Amino acid sequence: MTDHRIALIPGDGIGTEVLPPARQVLDAVGRRHGFGFSYTSYDDWSCERYLREGAMMPEDGLDQLRDKDAILLGAVGYPGVPDHVSLWGLLIPIRRGFRQYVNLRPIRVFEGIDSPVRGATAGAVDFVVVRENVEGEYSEIGGRLNRGFPEEMAVQEAVFTRAGVTRLLDYAFDLAERRGGRLTSATKSNGIVHTMPFWDELVAERGAAHPRVVWEQEHVDALAAKFVLDPARFDVVVASNLFGDILSDLAAAVAGSVGVAPAANLNPERTHPSMFEPVHGSAPDIAGRGIANPLGAISSAAMMLDHLGHPEAARDVTDAIAAILAGTDLRTPDLGGTASTAEFTDKLLELL
Amino acid sequence: MTDHRIALIPGDGIGTEVLPPARQVLDAVGRRHGFGFSYTSYDDWSCERYLREGAMMPEDGLDQLRDKDAILLGAVGYPGVPDHVSLWGLLIPIRRGFRQYVNLRPIRVFEGIDSPVRGATAGAVDFVVVRENVEGEYSEIGGRLNRGFPEEMAVQEAVFTRAGVTRLLDYAFDLAERRGGRLTSATKSNGIVHTMPFWDELVAERGAAHPRVVWEQEHVDALAAKFVLDPARFDVVVASNLFGDILSDLAAAVAGSVGVAPAANLNPERTHPSMFEPVHGSAPDIAGRGIANPLGAISSAAMMLDHLGHPEAARDVTDAIAAILAGTDLRTPDLGGTASTAEFTDKLLELL
Ligand SMILES: CC(C)[C@H](C(=O)O)[C@@H](O)C(=O)O
Ligand SMILES: CC(C)[C@H](C(=O)O)[C@@H](O)C(=O)O
Repeated sequence: MTDHRIALIPGDGIGTEVLPPARQVLDAVGRRHGFGFSYTSYDDWSCERYLREGAMMPEDGLDQLRDKDAILLGAVGYPGVPDHVSLWGLLIPIRRGFRQYVNLRPIRVFEGIDSPVRGATAGAVDFVVVRENVEGEYSEIGGRLNRGFPEEMAVQEAVFTRAGVTRLLDYAFDLAERRGGRLTSATKSNGIVHTMPFWDELVAERGAAHPRVVWEQEHVDALAAKFVLDPARFDVVVASNLFGDILSDLAAAVAGSVGVAPAANLNPERTHPSMFEPVHGSAPDIAGRGIANPLGAISSAAMMLDHLGHPEAARDVTDAIAAILAGTDLRTPDLGGTASTAEFTDKLLELL
Repeated sequence: MTDHRIALIPGDGIGTEVLPPARQVLDAVGRRHGFGFSYTSYDDWSCERYLREGAMMPEDGLDQLRDKDAILLGAVGYPGVPDHVSLWGLLIPIRRGFRQYVNLRPIRVFEGIDSPVRGATAGAVDFVVVRENVEGEYSEIGGRLNRGFPEEMAVQEAVFTRAGVTRLLDYAFDLAERRGGRLTSATKSNGIVHTMPFWDELVAERGAAHPRVVWEQEHVDALAAKFVLDPARFDVVVASNLFGDILSDLAAAVAGSVGVAPAANLNPERTHPSMFEPVHGSAPDIAGRGIANPLGAISSAAMMLDHLGHPEAARDVTDAIAAILAGTDLRTPDLGGTASTAEFTDKLLELL
């Protein structure tokens, strides 16, 4: 029986409430499939720690995580701590330090969840957003000048490297080959004059190297519109860091499931641990009341199982999620129900 | 009887088919309200000109437009001419050269147009996206290094100035005061580390100077999701160049009306002419068939009337648009009908 070494980082707010259910689910499917987990929990890596000690995690934080097989994160963010402090103090250093250059966001409409978009029916919408996760528009490069004076300005450098874009595109094209064979690249080469024409050239280059994939490109503004007008037409959508961020949240909303959506931050070469996290944030408004929806964290755990080499166990979990949504009325308040996190989790464990 | 000097730039594709109807409508309401127009048409400022002469417009193009009261643009773009060539050769120099720093996009669900979003019903959705239009993420600053080599990279500088952001925000807050008194600022200060925290500070500063406006900020990813989940809740949405670009196209799709949506590029100080243009592109796939929807151009003409000091005439036009959509089945093919551009325009003129 293999033991997978898992780092748990609950973080802030409802992050601390959704990780225990995810862990219960992991233990349950592990027992059934004959593998186990050894957990290390980093309970104080959070905004509270930042307020107390001036840092979200210890200086050797990344080193403490380095020998783990995977990381499961709850959520980071807390009123009173600016988001750029909390995120650049924990989430982003892990993504970057561990070369998790693929952010993977499956988009699926579940039976039993109403989509706000008419065309988004269960079964019809099933695609994946592959987002660049370590370079691009999010960079430390830039700064501010003439603070407080009329001439004040801020600049931000977006940086796209051939190596960084190519490895992402290869991941996305490979994924398209294993899925429906179609890929859509989000660009803005009509407006952003240096980086996006370069992106387009690399897409054409990698597209030529993957002749079985039919690919197209769409300007991000038109693509956002198409997510609403015709969400069923997509298979794999590949996008830069910022575009992927916007498109994946939008797509989760189109699927009716921001509170349910999972994300994976992958290091495909497995030289470093990958990280799995629900798309929802720390939701301070409902934190501490035991009503958080655990499905985002549990779906993220399913993605982790897949990454750890247990696709059948992952499928068991997503089947149980589909079953509880299609077959019962049990819902947490974010989906219009009255179930608590614990009630909902118990029922899910029963269905597993 | 005042004559307004209007520059017409039909551009490419269906741009050339939607400007004549807009002109017919302008002439009709002008006659009724007692003012006229003198038009100068720049018919060859287009991609065809670029292919022939290497430039979208003559060197002194901006000077030819400078003494006009307003510019009405069709659309720019043509297969075989890269978008960044056509746009940076015409549209963007006009926006920048004439300090049209406000891009205004009204979002409204018309009765008789089906929205793809369940919550977007006629009457309930009525907001405006105010987009920064001359600086920010779209800049010539940046470039490429090591072309074709493994070390190749491209950088793009986003530049936000205190003066540029402040004047935009003041426009948006003033507009919110005249409308519903609510403003939403699109940010990404949790991810984009230098420019967006600066943006947020300026929003707070200008918000304090407009105490009658209730304002909030939302990260652009979450905001895109809310456009789909709860489009009725917005009044004025203010955003940077890139965010506003994405959000306004998305919002037009939510309203069911990309083909109908107008845009204004405003120089609020009126030191230079403003420009009005439909949101749709040149649509080469349907160009030349006489079936383009003229409503985007006609609504843009209505915004122009408003800017020229004729709000009643503008209202006549938007009322006629509402009437033809609510009261008849006449539609161009993009809205599921069979009417030609000419048939549709004739009926609209009748209703005027
Ligand atoms: C064509 C492009 C450069 C332009 C923009 O992004 O500004 C268009 O999308 C628009 O919104 O007017
Ligand atoms: C919180 C923020 C920095 C983060 C991002 O933009 O990467 C989040 O939106 C996400 O998508 O994981």
